Formats: sequence, C-alpha cells, structure tokens
Amino acid sequence: MTAQQLFENICRKKSFLCVGLDTDMNKIPPHLLQSQEPIFQFNKDIIDATHDVCIAYKPNLAFYESQGLCGWEALEKTVAYLRKNYPDQFLIADAKRGDIGNTSEMYAQTFFKHLDFDAITVAPYMGEDSVTPFLGYPDKWVILLALTSNKGARDFQFTEDEEGKRLFEKVLELSQQWGNSNNLMYVAGATQGALFADIRKTVPNHFLLVPGVGTQGGDLQTVCQYGLTATCGLIVNSSRQILYASSGRDFAEMARKEALKVQSEMKEILREKGF
Amino acid sequence: MTAQQLFENICRKKSFLCVGLDTDMNKIPPHLLQSQEPIFQFNKDIIDATHDVCIAYKPNLAFYESQGLCGWEALEKTVAYLRKNYPDQFLIADAKRGDIGNTSEMYAQTFFKHLDFDAITVAPYMGEDSVTPFLGYPDKWVILLALTSNKGARDFQFTEDEEGKRLFEKVLELSQQWGNSNNLMYVAGATQGALFADIRKTVPNHFLLVPGVGTQGGDLQTVCQYGLTATCGLIVNSSRQILYASSGRDFAEMARKEALKVQSEMKEILREKGF
Repeated sequence: MTAQQLFENICRKKSFLCVGLDTDMNKIPPHLLQSQEPIFQFNKDIIDATHDVCIAYKPNLAFYESQGLCGWEALEKTVAYLRKNYPDQFLIADAKRGDIGNTSEMYAQTFFKHLDFDAITVAPYMGEDSVTPFLGYPDKWVILLALTSNKGARDFQFTEDEEGKRLFEKVLELSQQWGNSNNLMYVAGATQGALFADIRKTVPNHFLLVPGVGTQGGDLQTVCQYGLTATCGLIVNSSRQILYASSGRDFAEMARKEALKVQSEMKEILREKGF
Repeated sequence: MTAQQLFENICRKKSFLCVGLDTDMNKIPPHLLQSQEPIFQFNKDIIDATHDVCIAYKPNLAFYESQGLCGWEALEKTVAYLRKNYPDQFLIADAKRGDIGNTSEMYAQTFFKHLDFDAITVAPYMGEDSVTPFLGYPDKWVILLALTSNKGARDFQFTEDEEGKRLFEKVLELSQQWGNSNNLMYVAGATQGALFADIRKTVPNHFLLVPGVGTQGGDLQTVCQYGLTATCGLIVNSSRQILYASSGRDFAEMARKEALKVQSEMKEILREKGF
C-alpha cells in the first residue's frame, strides 16, 4: 500500500485507528476455547466487528508464536482472511525484528512474501544493514522503533550524544538516509506526549505508528496536537482496550463499541483539521 | 543450564564452539529436498556429525520462520532431538526479540517453556522492562545484544554520551542491574577485535556469545586474547562455514571437518590457558 492510498483510506473512513491483534489465549472469551481454532475465530469476529472503523490491523507476533504451530497457522489464516475480505486494510506485523543483513532478508521474505503484510516493526540497534533488507519491497514498509511507549524507553533512547542529540533523534535522522516517507514509518509511543513535537522536527512528514493509547495510558489529543501532518501522518493503535472489552459472548459487539469510541474522537479531530 | 555446567562442558570437550543452525532451503544439499523433512533432516545430520566437538547449537529463527508452518515444525523437532539425544548441549534461540513487558513475557514463554531453549538473544533498545521478563526463569539466559558483528554496529552502538561512554558500554553497564553473570550473557561480534578488551572492562566475568568468526571474517585468536576469562567466558559461533562446507552427499562429514578445525584451535587455546 502506498502512503497516498493510506491517506485516502483515512479520509474515507474518518479514522486512523489500528486494532492490535494481541490475541491471548488466557484472555479470549472462554466459550471460544471449545472452537477448533479459537485464535482465528476470535480474530475473525473482532475484524468483522471493527473493519469499517479502522484502517489497519496489527497482529503482535509474540502472541502467535507462544502457541507454536497452532499460533502460526492462526496468523496465516488471519492475514489471508483480511486480504480476501478487507483488502483496504493496512497490515502490520508487530515483530520487532532486526539482524545482520542475510538474516533480515530472511525475515523480510517471511513477512512480505509468504505472509503478505504491508509493514513490519524493526528494531534499530544493529543499524543500516539490519534495516535496509526490508526496504527493497515495493509498497511495503519498515516501521522503525524510535521512541517506544514503555518505561524502559528511558534507559537508552534518551541517551544524548556530544551534540545533545538523543538516541531516538539519531535513529530518526540517520534512517532517513536508508528510506523515505514512502517506505519508512516510525514507532512513537503515545505515552511520550509533547515529545511528538521533537519527533516532528526531524520527521515532519513520515507516518508514525503510535501504540500506548488505552491500557498504557497515552492520550490521543496530545498525540494529535503535536503529531498530525498535512496527510494525517498518524496510525494510532489500540489493542487490549478493544479486544478485551468483554469476556462474554458479546465480546465482538463490545469491541466494536470501544473502537467506535476512539474512532468518533478521531473523526472530530480530522474534521477540525479539515480532512 | 548453569554457568558452572557450561564451563564443565567446555573443559570436558575442549571446545567453546557453538554451531549456528542457519538452515537455508536454498543452500542445503539438493538431494535432501526430496526428503519429507529437509530442514530437520539437514539439522539432524549436522548435529550427529558435530555434537562431540561443540558445546552449543544456535538455530537462527529467521530461517525457520521463512518456511512458515514447516519451518516452525522443523525447529520444534530439532530442539526435541537435541534435548533427547544430546542433553549436555546449550541451546540458544537466535531470535533478537524484545518488546514491552507483557509481550516479552509471551516471547519468554515461547522460547523457555514451549521450546525449552537455554537462552535467547534479546535486543536492548526498549530497555529494562523489555528484557527482565526473560530473566525470571531458573537456569535460563538472556543474551543481550551489545556490540554486534555487522557493519551497521557503527551506526548507533558507538554513539558516545556526555561522559564519553559508548552505547554498547552503557548497555553492558546498565543491564547488570537487571541480571547477573548467571543469567545474562552478551553478544559481542568477533569482527570487533581488540574492542573485546573494552568489553571486558565492564563485564569481566560474563559469558559472551561471539558470532562473526568464519564467513564474516572475525579472528578467533584476537577474540580469545582479549575475551577469555578464568571460566572461559566465550561461546564462539560459526554457522555458514560449517553448515555449507559441502553441498554434496558428504555435507555432514565436511561440516564435521570444518568444526574440528575450529575446535582444534580452541583446544590449543584452552591448553595454553591451563584449562
């Protein structure tokens, strides 16, 4: 998917919501555990209930890998289901991969060829040759970790170099030599609030994937105040708050209600911005 | 496995060699492609041919994931085969994972409970709460990326803070508050040569996992000159040079020959050190 198509979807749906598919066997409604494919069944119901109010889905690989073969199968089926039924959705593999060149190339094949994701999250620690193998696929995206939503973000991401440049700023800056705003996005945690202003100084136009709204406590208004661009430039993710809105048979309905709540807020923000 | 058991295995086998199982469908001998389970068959033959000259095996997850369900199945079978037949081997999942706390916990369950690896490689960019979930398993290990073997290591790992401390040194230093030399190792690329002396200033006793000998051009003698400790403290990995020593029916035999070459050199180094 191109940046233009993504922006068009956002305008059409009045939404820049990404639903994070962190499907946890310990949290899905108990009645689903009796079905043959509980993970896929849960995902399918969540997707059918939310597809018209979001523009992206983001399976978190950890949750699928933890179920071994069944988990991997459920992931493949989920991606295939989305591709077939909702081809306008932007599909993000939240995998946080990154390794030496020949290994990153393998990961790229997995997520872009075999699984047909649009984007993958990548960790920047190993530098250029760990990232560029993901950038060689037309209309596919790297979403590079810059400033994450967790407490541990403080440990290294704020380390200042001799010139006072923080590590996350260095990641934003240097990586622009490897890709551009048509194949490179960045992870910026919603919990980082006003720091979005600093991020936008370095990457004024790139799309940002923003986790941390909802359970993690990030605030949508602040993110938008500092993060919105002329083409929206934000994909805001919510996972647990939507997925686990109810543990009963009404889980999909309640998930839709939660997603709608976020989307209504987004609609208003987009309206104010004149989109 | 404990650090003491690992050291005993090294002394008994006169080896600190880890064989990296980067099993690539495009590189394994063509005659294996006709077998029902080419990846597992290749691994099994390599393992049977090398187990007495190495102390660890390190499957690289990217290569298994790239084969989808079959790959994941081959990985499970490989770990089970090693556990059953060669229980003294130290098993490293080269996965370079790391995410927010609840997600890292999922990865930890995958690699330590379901798959029964001894260790997993973890990327430090997201800080403490992305690493500590892996540290709560008795006799299991985190191998944290510090100074990697690739060219891209220069991009961020050498960034100096106000006090002149480089990022890899900060990773070494800060992470010692999270774990200790009984549950935490570090990745240090063989291509970094004399920098091993700097690494040892911060972590004088921790085990280091050293990739980059062989195809990537790292030198074993230099690594040992600066990296050896009183309990060896090194696990040196070789992947491609051993696995793909021959693409014929003699691939396992030739792999053994390559592994023996490295092990002989290690034996001599250990002898000189008086182990």
